[in-house]
Amino acid sequence: MPPLQVVHPTPSDIEIAQAAQPVPIATVAERLGLEDADYEPYGHLKAKVRLEVRDKLADVPSGKYIVVAGITPTPLGEGKSTTTVGLCQALGAHLGKRVITCVRQPSQGPTFGIKGGAAGGGYSQVIPMEEFNLHMTGDIHAITAATNLLAAAIDTRMFHEATQSDDALFNRLCPPDQNGGRRFAPVMLRRLAKLGITATDPNQLTPEERSKFVRLDIDPATITWRRVLDTNDRFLRAITIGQGPAEKGMTRGTGFDIAVASEVMAILAVTTSLADMRERLGRIVIGSSRAGVPVTADDLGVGGALTVLMKDAIQPTLMQTLEETPVLVHAGPFANIATGNSSIVADQIALKLAGAEGYVVTEAGFGADIGAEKFCNIKCRYSGLSPDCMVIVATVRALKMHGGGPPVVAGKPLDHAYKTENLDLVRAGCVNLARHIANARAFGIPVVVAINRFATDTDAELEVVREEALKAGADEAAVAQHHGLGGAGAVDLANAVIRTCQKPANFEFTYPLDLSLKEKIEAIATKVYGAASVEFSPEASVLPSCGLQAEAALESYTRQGFGGLPVCMAKTQYSFSNDPAAKGAPSGFTFKVRELRVAAGAGWIIAVCGDMSMIPGLPTRPAYYEIDVDPATGRVLGLS
Amino acid sequence: MPPLQVVHPTPSDIEIAQAAQPVPIATVAERLGLEDADYEPYGHLKAKVRLEVRDKLADVPSGKYIVVAGITPTPLGEGKSTTTVGLCQALGAHLGKRVITCVRQPSQGPTFGIKGGAAGGGYSQVIPMEEFNLHMTGDIHAITAATNLLAAAIDTRMFHEATQSDDALFNRLCPPDQNGGRRFAPVMLRRLAKLGITATDPNQLTPEERSKFVRLDIDPATITWRRVLDTNDRFLRAITIGQGPAEKGMTRGTGFDIAVASEVMAILAVTTSLADMRERLGRIVIGSSRAGVPVTADDLGVGGALTVLMKDAIQPTLMQTLEETPVLVHAGPFANIATGNSSIVADQIALKLAGAEGYVVTEAGFGADIGAEKFCNIKCRYSGLSPDCMVIVATVRALKMHGGGPPVVAGKPLDHAYKTENLDLVRAGCVNLARHIANARAFGIPVVVAINRFATDTDAELEVVREEALKAGADEAAVAQHHGLGGAGAVDLANAVIRTCQKPANFEFTYPLDLSLKEKIEAIATKVYGAASVEFSPEASVLPSCGLQAEAALESYTRQGFGGLPVCMAKTQYSFSNDPAAKGAPSGFTFKVRELRVAAGAGWIIAVCGDMSMIPGLPTRPAYYEIDVDPATGRVLGLS
Repeated sequence: MPPLQVVHPTPSDIEIAQAAQPVPIATVAERLGLEDADYEPYGHLKAKVRLEVRDKLADVPSGKYIVVAGITPTPLGEGKSTTTVGLCQALGAHLGKRVITCVRQPSQGPTFGIKGGAAGGGYSQVIPMEEFNLHMTGDIHAITAATNLLAAAIDTRMFHEATQSDDALFNRLCPPDQNGGRRFAPVMLRRLAKLGITATDPNQLTPEERSKFVRLDIDPATITWRRVLDTNDRFLRAITIGQGPAEKGMTRGTGFDIAVASEVMAILAVTTSLADMRERLGRIVIGSSRAGVPVTADDLGVGGALTVLMKDAIQPTLMQTLEETPVLVHAGPFANIATGNSSIVADQIALKLAGAEGYVVTEAGFGADIGAEKFCNIKCRYSGLSPDCMVIVATVRALKMHGGGPPVVAGKPLDHAYKTENLDLVRAGCVNLARHIANARAFGIPVVVAINRFATDTDAELEVVREEALKAGADEAAVAQHHGLGGAGAVDLANAVIRTCQKPANFEFTYPLDLSLKEKIEAIATKVYGAASVEFSPEASVLPSCGLQAEAALESYTRQGFGGLPVCMAKTQYSFSNDPAAKGAPSGFTFKVRELRVAAGAGWIIAVCGDMSMIPGLPTRPAYYEIDVDPATGRVLGLS
Repeated sequence: MPPLQVVHPTPSDIEIAQAAQPVPIATVAERLGLEDADYEPYGHLKAKVRLEVRDKLADVPSGKYIVVAGITPTPLGEGKSTTTVGLCQALGAHLGKRVITCVRQPSQGPTFGIKGGAAGGGYSQVIPMEEFNLHMTGDIHAITAATNLLAAAIDTRMFHEATQSDDALFNRLCPPDQNGGRRFAPVMLRRLAKLGITATDPNQLTPEERSKFVRLDIDPATITWRRVLDTNDRFLRAITIGQGPAEKGMTRGTGFDIAVASEVMAILAVTTSLADMRERLGRIVIGSSRAGVPVTADDLGVGGALTVLMKDAIQPTLMQTLEETPVLVHAGPFANIATGNSSIVADQIALKLAGAEGYVVTEAGFGADIGAEKFCNIKCRYSGLSPDCMVIVATVRALKMHGGGPPVVAGKPLDHAYKTENLDLVRAGCVNLARHIANARAFGIPVVVAINRFATDTDAELEVVREEALKAGADEAAVAQHHGLGGAGAVDLANAVIRTCQKPANFEFTYPLDLSLKEKIEAIATKVYGAASVEFSPEASVLPSCGLQAEAALESYTRQGFGGLPVCMAKTQYSFSNDPAAKGAPSGFTFKVRELRVAAGAGWIIAVCGDMSMIPGLPTRPAYYEIDVDPATGRVLGLS
C-alpha cells in the first residue's frame, strides 16, 4: 500500500477524498479473507457483506473491541468520527494490525443542509465520501420505505374498519374460494394467537371471534407511528393528513421524522439475524386499541413485508479508509431518540474477521453520557458483547468551553480565548472529561483519552488535559494529529489503545432489567448524568403522534408488559443535564422526563427529556447551494 | 444456454422465477461485449451500465427499434409486459438474434398493494423478480430524495423570506468573508442571468437588485410541486403542512404523489446525458412568483444537488430474462401524468449494443393511444430515434369486452361470454384494435399484432382477430403463447417482427411543435382519440398543489414561454374518450381537458383530462399479507 501523501495546509475534505486512489473493494475483501460468495459488490468500491460470514467464523476467537466516545459536544466539534478513522489507519496501516472500523451511515438530510457529510475529515476519512454520504447501498431508503408502508397500513386499516361491517372486513381479509373455503394468511395466525383464538379455519370463527379478529379498533389518539423522509423538511414536523375528498373526512394530526429517527433504523442497529429482525419488525407497536391493547405491525399483517423491504439492508456495507483499511458502515440510528450506535451485526462480523490478534473500533454518537451509555446498557445487552477499551475524544478548545469559555456563535469569529493559551480554562473544563472517565470506569471499561490536537493548542494545554485525564482515572492519554497527518498522526494513540486492551475489563450495566421503568430512568440520571432526582413531568407533547405523558406512561407501559425493557434516553447532547447551557459537570440538579414512547420492536422504552427536533430544518443558505456535478467528468462538486 | 424447462399447468410467477438459475450478470454483460469498466455490478445479478458505452459505440450502426403497445386495456389484462419479454426470449434464445429488452422499473407501491409485481409473467419474466420489483438499484429512491429535497427547499425558502429582511437574506445567501468580500455560488449566477443582473461581485448589487436576487416571492397558491413516496398511501393525497409551533403558522395545503408520478422520474425517462439532466432538473418550475414569473429549482439553488442525487440513477440497470437474454430496466414514469415509457438513454445504449443485425424491443405503457402516442410525439422527439415496427398486443377476452361483453368485477367469477366461443363479440371488439392500428399507420410505423393466446380462446376466435387486424392495415398478425411456453411460444411473433422490420417506415409526429398548445391538444384528441372537439373546462382541481384551470392556463403558460413544448395527456387508459366506460372505438365525442400543468424540466405541458389518482391506495387485504421472508434461506415468499 502506498504511503499517504500529506499536503500542508490540509486541503478540503472532498479534495483529499477525490484525490485518493481507493483500491477495488474486492481487494479490501480479499485482504480480510472474504471469498466471492461472502459479499455482493455495489459498484467497484462498496460491497455488502453477508451475515453468514459471522456464523461461518463462529469458532474463530474475536478481536479486541474498542468503543470511541466523546466528551460533551460543543459547537466547536471534537472530531470523534475523524479520530475513529485515524486510530484505525494508525493500527492498520502503520502498526500492521488487523483492524476494522465500524461506523454509522449518515443521514442524507444534513448533507444538503447545515452539517455536511460525516465520513471523518482531513486525512482520516472513509472513501469515496460521496458514496458514503449519499444513498450508499440504499439502507436508509429501505428504512424509509418500510416505515412508510407501515404508516400507510395504519391509516388504510382505520379507514376500512370505519367504512365496512365485520362481515365485509372478514370477506375481504379471508376471501372465500370457489368452494366457499377460506384460509388465513400465515401472518394472521400471529394475531389469532395474541387473541387466544385457536381455530385454523376462518369458517370456524364465532361472530365474536370474527369481530375481534377483523377489528384492530385503533384509537387514533394513541398512534405514535410517524412517517419518515431522509430530508431536512421542517414543514412536515406537524401535518394533517386525509384531507382528500375520497378519505371522507378521516383527517388526523401526525408528522414526519427524519428516516434515521425511525424505529426501523433502531431495529436495524440492534438486530442479530434475519429471523430476529422479522420478529422485531412484527412486534413494533404503533399505538393502542380503544381497549388499551397495543397494536403491532403483525396485527396489521405487514411484518413480513417490512422484513422483505429490509432484507438487503441487514448486510453491512464494506468500504475503506484513505489508507486502505476496511470499514463496515451499518445503521445510523438517531442518538437522541435511539441508540446512536452502529449495528450489532457489523461489530459481530468485524470481531470475527479481525480474529484474536485484531482490533474492532466502533463509534458511539454524541457524548459518552449518551452514546457510550446506550452502547453499554442497550447495544451490549442485546449483542452479548463487551468492550475491551473505551476511547474518549477531547479537544482543548471544547474543554475550554466546558471550563467557562465564552459562547461560540456560528458565523461570528471565534473568541480569543479559544485561540491562545489559557491553562486555567482548560483545567476547569476537564471536569467534563473527568465525569465521562468516571462513568467509563463505572462500566468497568479501561479508558484511553484521545486528545485531538488543533493548530492553536499549546503543548502546555495538551499536558494539562493529559494530567487531568490520568488523575481522573484514565489508563492512558495520548495526543493525536490524524486530521492533518492521517494514521501517522495517531500512532501514539493506537499504541495506547493496544496496551490498554491488554488490561482486564470488568464490564457491568448501570441497571438490571428487573428494576421498574422509573428506577431504571433514575439509575441512568443519577449514576451517569449526576442528577439528584428525576421529575416525571405532566407536560404533553408539542407535536402530534409522539409519546405519552411521562407519569401516566410509566404505569401504562408497565401494564402493557413493557416494564422489563431497557430505557433509551432522549436528551440534549450538550449537557449532562436537561439544560444545554449547563457545561462542565453539573450535579445536584433535578432531571426532567417529559414523555415516554415504547419502541417494542427495537426493544426499549424511550424517555423524552425536553424538546427535540426529530427532523432538522434547512438554513437560509443550505449546503446544496455549492453542490453540483461536473457534467464532463461526473465528479461531485461542493460536498463538505 | 440450457433450454427452458416448462411445466404444465404453469406454476405461479414467483415459483417460476425462483426456480430459474440466472447466469451471473457479468456473463450477460460479456455476451453483449461490455467490458468491466463499462458497468458497475449491484450484487451478482444486476449491474448499472455507464452512458459512456453509447458514446463509445457512436459509430456502430443501430439495431432495429420495436415498440410494444397495446389495445385499450381492460381489467382482464392483456399481457403487454409478458409479450415484450416473451418476444425477446424468442428473438434471442430461439432465433439466435442479438436482442435487448427495454422496460420500465415498476413502482414498489403496488407490489405491496393490489397489483403485484411487473416483471412479466409465466415463462416470460425478468429475473430475479424480487429484485426487479423491490429497490432494484435504488433509482426510484433517488427520485424520491430529489423530489422531496426540492419540496423542502420551497417551504424553507418561503419561511426564511417571510421572516427576514432583504439584508439578512443577502447576508446569509452571500455571507461576507473576514475581509468583507462576498461570492456568488455558481448556481446563483443562473438566477442573476435570469434577472438580467450582470454583476459578478455580490457587493456590486444595488439595493433593488439585492431585493430581486434574494426574494423569490413565491405565491403559495401557484405551487404545483408536490412531495412523493413510493408507497400506496392515500391519506397523503391532500394534507396541510407547517403546523408545528416553530413554523409560526405558515401552514399550506399540499399533498404527496407516488414517486413514479414525479417530474424527476419524467426527466430521468427523457434525458439524454448527465449535462442534459442537470439543465432539466434546474429548469423545473415549482410555481410562480406573485408577479407571475415561473420559479425554478435553480432559482432555489438546488438544481445541482438534485443532479448529484440522480447521478447514479441515470445509468440503466442490466438484468436478464428467464432465457438469459439481456434486459435494460430504466425509469418508470407514470403513464397518465408522464410518458409511461422507459428511458431514452436505455434505448440508445441498447440500439448500439444490438448493432446492425440486432433488435431492441421497448415497451410503452397503457394502450397505444397513450403509451405509443407519447412514445412517438414526446420520447422520439427528444431522442431523435424512430421505430421500425410497432407491436400491438391484443387478447380475445379483452376484445370481447370492447365488443360489448359484460363488465368484469374483481372477486366475481368471470362471465360465460369470456370463456366460450363468441365470434360476434370478438369481431365487434376489433374496432378498438383497428383504431390503434390506424393510429400506428398515421405515425408511419409498420404494425404487427400480437394475439396473446389464453386457454379459453378458440382457433376461430383467434382467426377473427387475425383477419380483422390485417383488414385494418396491420402488416402481420401472429398468435403467441409465451406465458406458458416462454420464447418458444413467441417464435411466430418474432418472425413476423423480423419481416416487418425490413419494411420501410415513414415516421411522422401528430403535430409540429409550432402549433399553439390548444391546437396541439386538439390534434391529439381528434387525430388519435377520435374526438370531434375539445372543451377546456373551467373546473378547478380537487386536490391542492395541482395544475391551473385549463382555459386560463393555455394563456398563462404560453405567456410564460412554454407554448412551444409538446403536450403530455393525462387521461383515463380505459377508453379513447374521457369516459372509462366507453369501450370499443368511440368517436364524435367532445373531449374534456380540466387543468394544465407545466413540466418544464421534463419538457412538456400536462393536460389533465378528468380525475386521476396520483397516489394509489391499499385494499382491505393488501398483497403484503402474503409477503414474508423465509428466515432460514432469506427467500422472499408471497410476491406475485
